[in-house]
Amino acid sequence: MLKDLVAKNRSYRRFFEDEKISSDQIKEWIDLARLGASGRNAQTIKYKIVLSDKMRDNVFQQLAWAGYLQDWAGPEKGERPTAYVVMINDEGLGKNYFSDDGIAVQNLLLGAVESGYGGCIIHAFKKKELSELLKIEEGFSIIQVVALGKPKEKVVIEEMKDGDIKYWRDEKGVHHVPKRSIDEIILEEL
Amino acid sequence: MLKDLVAKNRSYRRFFEDEKISSDQIKEWIDLARLGASGRNAQTIKYKIVLSDKMRDNVFQQLAWAGYLQDWAGPEKGERPTAYVVMINDEGLGKNYFSDDGIAVQNLLLGAVESGYGGCIIHAFKKKELSELLKIEEGFSIIQVVALGKPKEKVVIEEMKDGDIKYWRDEKGVHHVPKRSIDEIILEEL
Repeated sequence: MLKDLVAKNRSYRRFFEDEKISSDQIKEWIDLARLGASGRNAQTIKYKIVLSDKMRDNVFQQLAWAGYLQDWAGPEKGERPTAYVVMINDEGLGKNYFSDDGIAVQNLLLGAVESGYGGCIIHAFKKKELSELLKIEEGFSIIQVVALGKPKEKVVIEEMKDGDIKYWRDEKGVHHVPKRSIDEIILEEL
Repeated sequence: MLKDLVAKNRSYRRFFEDEKISSDQIKEWIDLARLGASGRNAQTIKYKIVLSDKMRDNVFQQLAWAGYLQDWAGPEKGERPTAYVVMINDEGLGKNYFSDDGIAVQNLLLGAVESGYGGCIIHAFKKKELSELLKIEEGFSIIQVVALGKPKEKVVIEEMKDGDIKYWRDEKGVHHVPKRSIDEIILEEL
């Protein structure tokens, strides 16, 4: 059922780094992203897949991890993502991609979770350095980076208290994510 | 399987208007949206549900339908959406909602499809008029409107030719949507 998949699709930031993901597997997930709706049907979003050890290491250096965990600089060696999918806007096809970025990444991540993997969407990266590293050409722009792997951590959702949005990690390493209640987010029925 | 659900989740614009959707059913789909990832975990997106005949009619008047179908002004009476979910950004919680809008709407629509319904994301609406109609308060802003119902049309995906992104409807009323190939959207493997 979709609900189970959605519940299991948490933002994972630590992985069994030696559990590799094949290029074909990632392409299946990107194919799900491809099949998502697109504003004006422009389909401006394109992808670079990063799988090699060297490039994964280089990409990793340009990313920032889990802003609210101030004591944690990101996953250690051995727990880093096994792959990255970099989502790039082809501005020649359209500068405005409406909500395509989220639709695509959600299909991709739900696909990963269904296959026993998981990931995390990263918006905090050194844009100039990462663009140079990935040889992003003029007219293209990085939207977000999706880190992927076999999750090595437990992530739980809990009720938000006093509007505190900060996720936190307990002494057992479990990652807790406060969520607003359904009553808080539904403003009105008309 | 997710792939079947993703394939079935097309943009539907004509519905069996007398097949009603309950408020509880829509809340289940919004709950899926609620469980999606959120940038900085800010969860700025809120919802208004439109179900009553009068408000549905009023909302309908503010929407534009299927830009590429120039001979079609939108669904006729009897084929209009049974419900709308209006996604609204609570700017006091954050002006930037990253890709949350797409993540949330994709969860919502996949939920609808799994339950035998379907919908269409609409970005083309008269913002001022719709905001007044829905009494959108200062500090809140409509992101997109999701039209929902029991689909009364067939939508098929086809290979894009010569970069022509325009969807079209054939003489049998089947809606055809050209999609870029996986080879076109994957720029590189590194």
